[in-house]
Amino acid sequence: MQKPSIPKGTRDFSPVEMAKRNYIFNTIKEVYHLYGYQQIETPAMENLSTLMGKYGEEGDKLLFKILNSGDFLSGVSDEEVLERNTPRLATRICEKGLRYDLTVPFARYVVQHRNEINFPFKRYQIQPVWRADRPQKGRYREFYQCDGDVVGSDSLLNEVELIQIMDEVFHRFGIRVAIKMNNRKILTGIAEIIGEAEKIVDITVVIDKLDKIGLDKVNEELRSKGLSEKAIEQLQPTILLTGTNSEKVASLKNILSASETGVKGVEELQFILEKIEKTPLDATLELDLTLARGLNYYTGAIFEVKALDVQIGSITGGGRYDNLTGVFGMPGVSGVGISFGADRIFDVLNQLELYPENALKTTQLLFVNFGEKEQEWLLPVLKQVRMTGIRTELYPEAVKMKKQMSYADAKQIPFVAIAGEDEIAENKVNLKNMLTGEQSLVGVEELIQSIR
Amino acid sequence: MQKPSIPKGTRDFSPVEMAKRNYIFNTIKEVYHLYGYQQIETPAMENLSTLMGKYGEEGDKLLFKILNSGDFLSGVSDEEVLERNTPRLATRICEKGLRYDLTVPFARYVVQHRNEINFPFKRYQIQPVWRADRPQKGRYREFYQCDGDVVGSDSLLNEVELIQIMDEVFHRFGIRVAIKMNNRKILTGIAEIIGEAEKIVDITVVIDKLDKIGLDKVNEELRSKGLSEKAIEQLQPTILLTGTNSEKVASLKNILSASETGVKGVEELQFILEKIEKTPLDATLELDLTLARGLNYYTGAIFEVKALDVQIGSITGGGRYDNLTGVFGMPGVSGVGISFGADRIFDVLNQLELYPENALKTTQLLFVNFGEKEQEWLLPVLKQVRMTGIRTELYPEAVKMKKQMSYADAKQIPFVAIAGEDEIAENKVNLKNMLTGEQSLVGVEELIQSIR
Repeated sequence: MQKPSIPKGTRDFSPVEMAKRNYIFNTIKEVYHLYGYQQIETPAMENLSTLMGKYGEEGDKLLFKILNSGDFLSGVSDEEVLERNTPRLATRICEKGLRYDLTVPFARYVVQHRNEINFPFKRYQIQPVWRADRPQKGRYREFYQCDGDVVGSDSLLNEVELIQIMDEVFHRFGIRVAIKMNNRKILTGIAEIIGEAEKIVDITVVIDKLDKIGLDKVNEELRSKGLSEKAIEQLQPTILLTGTNSEKVASLKNILSASETGVKGVEELQFILEKIEKTPLDATLELDLTLARGLNYYTGAIFEVKALDVQIGSITGGGRYDNLTGVFGMPGVSGVGISFGADRIFDVLNQLELYPENALKTTQLLFVNFGEKEQEWLLPVLKQVRMTGIRTELYPEAVKMKKQMSYADAKQIPFVAIAGEDEIAENKVNLKNMLTGEQSLVGVEELIQSIR
Repeated sequence: MQKPSIPKGTRDFSPVEMAKRNYIFNTIKEVYHLYGYQQIETPAMENLSTLMGKYGEEGDKLLFKILNSGDFLSGVSDEEVLERNTPRLATRICEKGLRYDLTVPFARYVVQHRNEINFPFKRYQIQPVWRADRPQKGRYREFYQCDGDVVGSDSLLNEVELIQIMDEVFHRFGIRVAIKMNNRKILTGIAEIIGEAEKIVDITVVIDKLDKIGLDKVNEELRSKGLSEKAIEQLQPTILLTGTNSEKVASLKNILSASETGVKGVEELQFILEKIEKTPLDATLELDLTLARGLNYYTGAIFEVKALDVQIGSITGGGRYDNLTGVFGMPGVSGVGISFGADRIFDVLNQLELYPENALKTTQLLFVNFGEKEQEWLLPVLKQVRMTGIRTELYPEAVKMKKQMSYADAKQIPFVAIAGEDEIAENKVNLKNMLTGEQSLVGVEELIQSIR
């Protein structure tokens, strides 16, 4: 018989991995709560009509589609089948698909429940998503997203708050980070001014290399991307922008003065920076003009978080978007949101060994099992100990001591209590600290005190 | 444009529903932890080869199958397609399916990770499962299961512990319950003794009606099921079994003395009852011979929990099974487990209004927004308040007071703080208790004290 396996790109999570993941999710949840965000959940399956066309042509291909139950071919003609136009046939035999992200289901949720929702709606959502991507190191076909969004409010205070939330989360994790910020309106302004609107993504990618390759090479690459000499010249002050955030803001005001959108972007940025200064962050907050993520989607502020002590891609990102729900017939709903990358945060915490001991806590106390008579004495003791909240086990079988001790070892149980005939006669147990090897004869009350 | 919707039999969970569900899951998790159970998670998608044939022919039909990515018809001949044998065709174009329960994935997990697992393995798992059932009231196509199992131990102490776990969970919920217990070996024994092994399910169903229809009608129904007069006569002492659990055990010992399996079943039951008596339960524990759930699956103890104050089916169930993993090539692994019915528990808690206030806690304090100047004063205050753990919001826009107050109302925020020009001049805020309507001018420290 073949050893069973799971689909490629999916994972089992062991007890230790679950404890670590729960620590991550719980920390994020606590911080969201602290800022008044409320959790929702949506079904794993959405109608394909909700999902299709929202992620581009490539995205449609990456949707996991669910075969209709029963006679899925009824209503499909022989001709249609024999045509073997599989993308089209797929939509004929599948009505549902697995969610691809949390954003589209959230937009669908907002429209569907618009009359029950209390706007501005601050929601967070931590659920798995599925993508039929080619699996590779660090990329999975099932993975969790941890999204927080406010919809129904244009106020930039929401951006301020989301920066504080990111800061607080990574502060709690003990991960040193830089929060990078940009504004899509500034990028639009730059494109307007140099007259190269459609090349703005190329431009940001090239500018991003300045530190590595130097100004001459940057300009050369811009030329190779088809930028005119005039555009490149006009771009020089932007490329060479340096200094503190306020210095950059001041320069940008000059550079972008001829672009209404650009000026608006600088003002937004300035508002956010000023408000953030009222309560200093743990993280560094950097205005980074090369930040351009998801250009077609975002319309205002853009965020990205980089870990300072580990080489890894961005561990959180987000931004402001207009018209989240327009595609579902509810126009004019603006929002801003962030998404924590749970898998990468997991890797960073592992590499830096930042998990607090308490988060990985498993059973705290194991009672050795000597047989039925001892069991009966132990049962009320177990109850007493558990009532104080101590995670306690009695080894279920009276097997050799060695086996019971190695169970405790493997589960990293810090205390083992031994209550054989002699101990029971004294109404005591022998408590062994598995870390130090120390052993002491104690009453139940004392045992509870020692462990707490 | 059509209003978007979700697939039938699936649900969105609103913030309030999520808070309630989290309370349920967290309570169950805490109790599992207290007994040394550890959480695992498995992927939503399993290979169809793992799932098929495990739930009977009907179950295979109820599996949600996931269409292969890309050219799913490659390798499928025209003839095969035109045959329109859809169940067979489904397995040709789908390799994966959504998990149908948590038991088969757990069995697969145990076999796949046998070398990493520390046996006896006490695991719990709280995840959604999917079934292509016809949706109806209270039956969903996506729903959560909350399973706890111990595998790799035959000890009846595991059964004792699971009873304690069920008792503790419902004690914490404040739901009064009866835990019903039976033993599959006793049912086998009864069937052996009356010589009607294959009719045992029918028999338990009929006996279950005794209270409602009386002895004569019960015997009549047994006759109509094809039981011989002799068998019915031999069944009388079992049907009429009454009294305390110990009295029932004593009678059963007599009745079943000729069946080795039956005697074994009674001994198991007796062991469990004796051990449970060492630490009294909150719940009543009843030996119920009519309890027969999942006969083909269970081999020892069987459990079911009934709520006493709400008319609803069983809200938890479980039992011992042999050979969980045999189907995946790893024989001899016995286990025992329970599964909490989250949806029914949700309904019971709703009906009895048993949710603790703290579980439904949302934002505790809303600051009214009067404009940019006031915001700047408030930002450090917000930080100070949040640092004490109080869930706090600043309304993101300086809109009319009425709108901000109705936001607080709708979100059931208990305190609203008003800090306009006058209050700020005094370095104070006006704190309004939304329940009592009381208002008082307080400093930040005092505000924090009032809310905590």
